[in-house]
Amino acid sequence: MTIRTLVWNEFFHEQHNDVVRNLYPDGIHAAIAGFLNREEGISAETATLPEAEHGLPQARLDATDVLLWWGHKMHGDVEDAIVDRVAERVHQGMGLIVLHSGHFSKPFKRLMGTPCSLRWREAGERERLWAVNRSHPIVQGVGHSIELPNAEMYGEPFLVPEPMETVFISWFEGGEVFRSGLTYQRGAGKIFYFRPGHETYPIYHNPEIQRVLVNAVRWAYNPVAAWSDVSAAPNVPVEKAPEKIQQKGGSLHKPGEEGYR
Amino acid sequence: MTIRTLVWNEFFHEQHNDVVRNLYPDGIHAAIAGFLNREEGISAETATLPEAEHGLPQARLDATDVLLWWGHKMHGDVEDAIVDRVAERVHQGMGLIVLHSGHFSKPFKRLMGTPCSLRWREAGERERLWAVNRSHPIVQGVGHSIELPNAEMYGEPFLVPEPMETVFISWFEGGEVFRSGLTYQRGAGKIFYFRPGHETYPIYHNPEIQRVLVNAVRWAYNPVAAWSDVSAAPNVPVEKAPEKIQQKGGSLHKPGEEGYR
Amino acid sequence: MTIRTLVWNEFFHEQHNDVVRNLYPDGIHAAIAGFLNREEGISAETATLPEAEHGLPQARLDATDVLLWWGHKMHGDVEDAIVDRVAERVHQGMGLIVLHSGHFSKPFKRLMGTPCSLRWREAGERERLWAVNRSHPIVQGVGHSIELPNAEMYGEPFLVPEPMETVFISWFEGGEVFRSGLTYQRGAGKIFYFRPGHETYPIYHNPEIQRVLVNAVRWAYNPVAAWSDVSAAPNVPVEKAPEKIQQKGGSLHKPGEEGYR
Amino acid sequence: MTIRTLVWNEFFHEQHNDVVRNLYPDGIHAAIAGFLNREEGISAETATLPEAEHGLPQARLDATDVLLWWGHKMHGDVEDAIVDRVAERVHQGMGLIVLHSGHFSKPFKRLMGTPCSLRWREAGERERLWAVNRSHPIVQGVGHSIELPNAEMYGEPFLVPEPMETVFISWFEGGEVFRSGLTYQRGAGKIFYFRPGHETYPIYHNPEIQRVLVNAVRWAYNPVAAWSDVSAAPNVPVEKAPEKIQQKGGSLHKPGEEGYR
Repeated sequence: MTIRTLVWNEFFHEQHNDVVRNLYPDGIHAAIAGFLNREEGISAETATLPEAEHGLPQARLDATDVLLWWGHKMHGDVEDAIVDRVAERVHQGMGLIVLHSGHFSKPFKRLMGTPCSLRWREAGERERLWAVNRSHPIVQGVGHSIELPNAEMYGEPFLVPEPMETVFISWFEGGEVFRSGLTYQRGAGKIFYFRPGHETYPIYHNPEIQRVLVNAVRWAYNPVAAWSDVSAAPNVPVEKAPEKIQQKGGSLHKPGEEGYR
Repeated sequence: MTIRTLVWNEFFHEQHNDVVRNLYPDGIHAAIAGFLNREEGISAETATLPEAEHGLPQARLDATDVLLWWGHKMHGDVEDAIVDRVAERVHQGMGLIVLHSGHFSKPFKRLMGTPCSLRWREAGERERLWAVNRSHPIVQGVGHSIELPNAEMYGEPFLVPEPMETVFISWFEGGEVFRSGLTYQRGAGKIFYFRPGHETYPIYHNPEIQRVLVNAVRWAYNPVAAWSDVSAAPNVPVEKAPEKIQQKGGSLHKPGEEGYR
Repeated sequence: MTIRTLVWNEFFHEQHNDVVRNLYPDGIHAAIAGFLNREEGISAETATLPEAEHGLPQARLDATDVLLWWGHKMHGDVEDAIVDRVAERVHQGMGLIVLHSGHFSKPFKRLMGTPCSLRWREAGERERLWAVNRSHPIVQGVGHSIELPNAEMYGEPFLVPEPMETVFISWFEGGEVFRSGLTYQRGAGKIFYFRPGHETYPIYHNPEIQRVLVNAVRWAYNPVAAWSDVSAAPNVPVEKAPEKIQQKGGSLHKPGEEGYR
Repeated sequence: MTIRTLVWNEFFHEQHNDVVRNLYPDGIHAAIAGFLNREEGISAETATLPEAEHGLPQARLDATDVLLWWGHKMHGDVEDAIVDRVAERVHQGMGLIVLHSGHFSKPFKRLMGTPCSLRWREAGERERLWAVNRSHPIVQGVGHSIELPNAEMYGEPFLVPEPMETVFISWFEGGEVFRSGLTYQRGAGKIFYFRPGHETYPIYHNPEIQRVLVNAVRWAYNPVAAWSDVSAAPNVPVEKAPEKIQQKGGSLHKPGEEGYR
C-alpha cells in the first residue's frame, strides 16, 4: 500500500528572497517531496499556490492520503473554497501535517477553531526539541531530542486547543519554550503540527527533521475508506428506529423532510 | 459580581409555527432569560437574528460574560462577520453555551473546526440524560439523570472534537445514544454544548433543564479580564529576549517588521 | 511481524457454573485465543490465575506484545507483585485490553488510578454499542452499531479518567448508557477497555465482538522496542547538561548520587 | 465559605540538612501554611510523616478540602493504607496539589497510574516557567512567566498521563524543558502538579510561587458534598430499571447478591 502524499507550498519566498532560494532552489515543497519519495511505501507530489485551484482540485485531494502544508506570507491569498475543501477532506480521513508558519494558515485555523497565535523572533538562535513520549511513532529514529543550531523562535502561549498528544516541546536559546509537535483528531482525519521549518535556515535538509516528517506521514495515514458523508445529518425515520417506537408529541418537520443547516 | 448573560435566538419558529408559539409565546430567548434572571448574581438580556447586527454589536459582546445560542432553520442567515466577532470574544474569555440545534450554528462549527453532524428523529420519544460526573458543577441540583418524556432524538456519531469533559450521555427510547453535555476550552473561553431544547416540546420549562443552564452559566463565566490581544502574534525582538542572545544566521524580516498572517 | 498476544483469564466460573461451562467449555481464554489465532499476523497463547505466577512470569510478559485480561470473582487473588509487573510492562509499551468485569481488576485500577466503579444489572437485556468514531481502527468491519440480544447492564457513572478516545457508547434496554469502548495511553503502552463479555452469554462467540477484539489487538500493538527504563529517573550531571552551565546555589545531593524515590 | 487546607510534609531535610533548615526553620509545611493562612477564605493546617497516621487520620482527611503534598527522601515510609485513604478522598472530591519531588510520592503515583519518572540535575540553574494559558485561574496575578534564579532541573520525558490542561512549561538554563504545571480530574477530585519547590532554594518564599499555590488551592476546591460512595458498584435490580424490562437469559448472580471485586 502506497501512501499518496501531497506537499503544498505557497512557493513565494523561494522566488523573492536570495537566502531562501539558495537553500531551496526548487522550493520547500520539492525538497520535502524529494526525501519523502525516497521512502518505501510513500509517493509524494507537490502543489503550489499559483497553480489553478492552488493545485488542489477536488479529484486530486480525493486521491491524497496525507497533505503537508507550508505557508507564510501568502496565507490571505488562499481561497476560502479551497480551505473548505481541505478541511472537509481531513474530516473524511485525509491526514494533514502543518509546518512551521502554517500555524497561521487558513486550513489550520479552520480546523483548530482558535487564533493559533504565538510569539516569535527571527534571531537564528539554537532550538532543542525534546520528545515527550519516546515511544510515539512520530519520534522513532530520533534521539531524546533534536538540536537545531539556527531557528526562528516561537514562544508560548500557542493558542490552540489542548492536543490529543504533546509529542515535542522546544527549548530556545533566548529563553522561551514552545509545544512544537502536537497531534489532533478531527473527524476521521489525523493532524500533526510540527514547528521547525523557517525558510532562511536549512531545516528541511536536517536528517532528523526529515525522519520526523516521514514518521508523521505514516502516522497520519488512515487506511480506512473516506468517510464521504461525514458532514451529513441524516434523518432516521420512526419506522427505522432500532427500537420500535410510536410518533408522539408536536412536530416541526413533515415526514421525510430534510433537516435545517 | 454579576454575570452578564446574553441569550441569543434566531426567533423564527416561534413566529411561524403554532406549536412553538404556544410553548414560547415571547420566544425561547425570553423564556431562558426569564429563569436566568431569577438567579442571584446573573443578569440576562436577549438578542435575536432580526435585530441590527443580530443584536450583537461589538460593544454589547464586549460587555457579555456568557452567551447562550439557540438557532435552527436560519443558521445560514447569520453574517460571517458576526460569527467572527463571537468566536473572537470566546477566545478572549466569553463563555458560550450552545443549545440543541445550535450544533449546526456557524459559531459552534467555527469554534469546533469539525462538521458537528449527527443523526436525528423527531418522534417525541423519551430521553434520559445520565450524568457521567456527578461532582461536576454543571450537574449540581439534578439527580443522577434527567428524564424528558418527549424529545427529538440526536444520535451518535456526533462529529465534534474529543471534549475536555463528557458531562451527560443520553439514552433514547428509539435505541440511540448521544453525548449530550460536552465541555471545551478554546483560548480563554469555556464552551458547553447542551443537547436538549427542541422547540416543539416544553424543554426549557423543565426545572432540571433550567438548573443545568443556570449551572452552566456559572461554570462558563471567566472572571479574568478579557484577553484582548489573544489573536496577536507579537515579535519579541532580540534585545528583549529573556536570555541574552546575538542575532545569527539569515533573516527574512527587517528589524521591527510585522509578521505575516 | 507477528503480534505476540496473551489472553489471561481467572478461569473460575467456567469450572464452577454450568451455564458458563456450556458456553466456554475450555474457558473464555481459550475461546478468545482461538479466534485470534485464526488471524494473520497474530499468535495468541493463554495464561490463567491458577498457574505459577498466574502464568505471567517476567520472561513471558517481556515476550508479550498485547495482553488481554478477563477477571471477575477472583480479582483479590491476583498477587500485587504480578500486578506491578503487568503495569510496568504496559508502561514499557505492551498493549493491554481489559475485558468486561476486568474493570475492577487490579491491573486496570492500578493503571487508571481511579475506582473504576459503575452500576450493573444481570437481566439478559438488549445492548447496542454505538461507534462514536466510525473511522477508528478498532471499529473497522463492524457497522455503525453492534447489537447484543442478551447482556449484563453496566451503567454510568463509570469512574475512570477522561479517555484519549471514546470509541463505543452502549444503549441498554433497561434505560442506562455506558462508555463501552475507551482508549488510554499510559507510558509507552496503549490500553483499550471493552465492556461486553459477561460469562453467562455467548458474547465472545459473536463475530462482531471478535472483530473488535482482533482490531483492538492490532491497535494496541506498539512495534517500538520496549522502553525498558521508563520508570528510571536518571541524574543528568552538570557536565552533561545540553547547555554549558556552572554549579550554583546550595545542594542536597553529592555528585553522582542517586535520587530518592 | 472557608477552604480547609492541609499541608503535608515528610519534614526530614529541614531537620537533617543545614541549608534546608536555614531556609525553612519550621519546615516547608509551616512556610506554605503560613502564606495560605494570610488569604481570605483559606484556613491551612499542617501534617507530617512522623505524626500518628502521618497526621492524616480519616476524620481529618474527611474535613479537608484541599491537600498539599511535599515529599522526597521518605516516600517509601508512607504507609500504603494512608495512601489508599488519600486517593479515596481525592476520588470523593478532595483537591490535591502535588509539589516538586512529590512526583514520586505514593499518592501521586497511585492516582496517575504511571511511573511519574523524569530526568533531574541539582545545579542551581535558572528556570523560567511559561504560562501556557494566561486566562487560567491558577496563573492569575502572575505575569506571562515566572523566573527562578536557582532551581533543580526536571527534564522531559515526564511519565504522566496526558493532562486535562498544561498550565506551565519550564525552560532551564542547562537546556531542558518540563511540563511544570499540569491539571487532572480523578473522580470528583481535581489534582494540580506544580514542579518548583526544591528544598535547598527559597522557592516557597517567592511571592509568585506563593500566588500560584494560593490560586491552585482555590482552583482545586470542589464545593460539592463528598461523593462518599464513589467506589461502590451498586446493583440496579430489574424492578428498579428506569425502563420496564423482564429478566432473560442465564444468570450468575442470585437476586440481591453483591457484585465481585
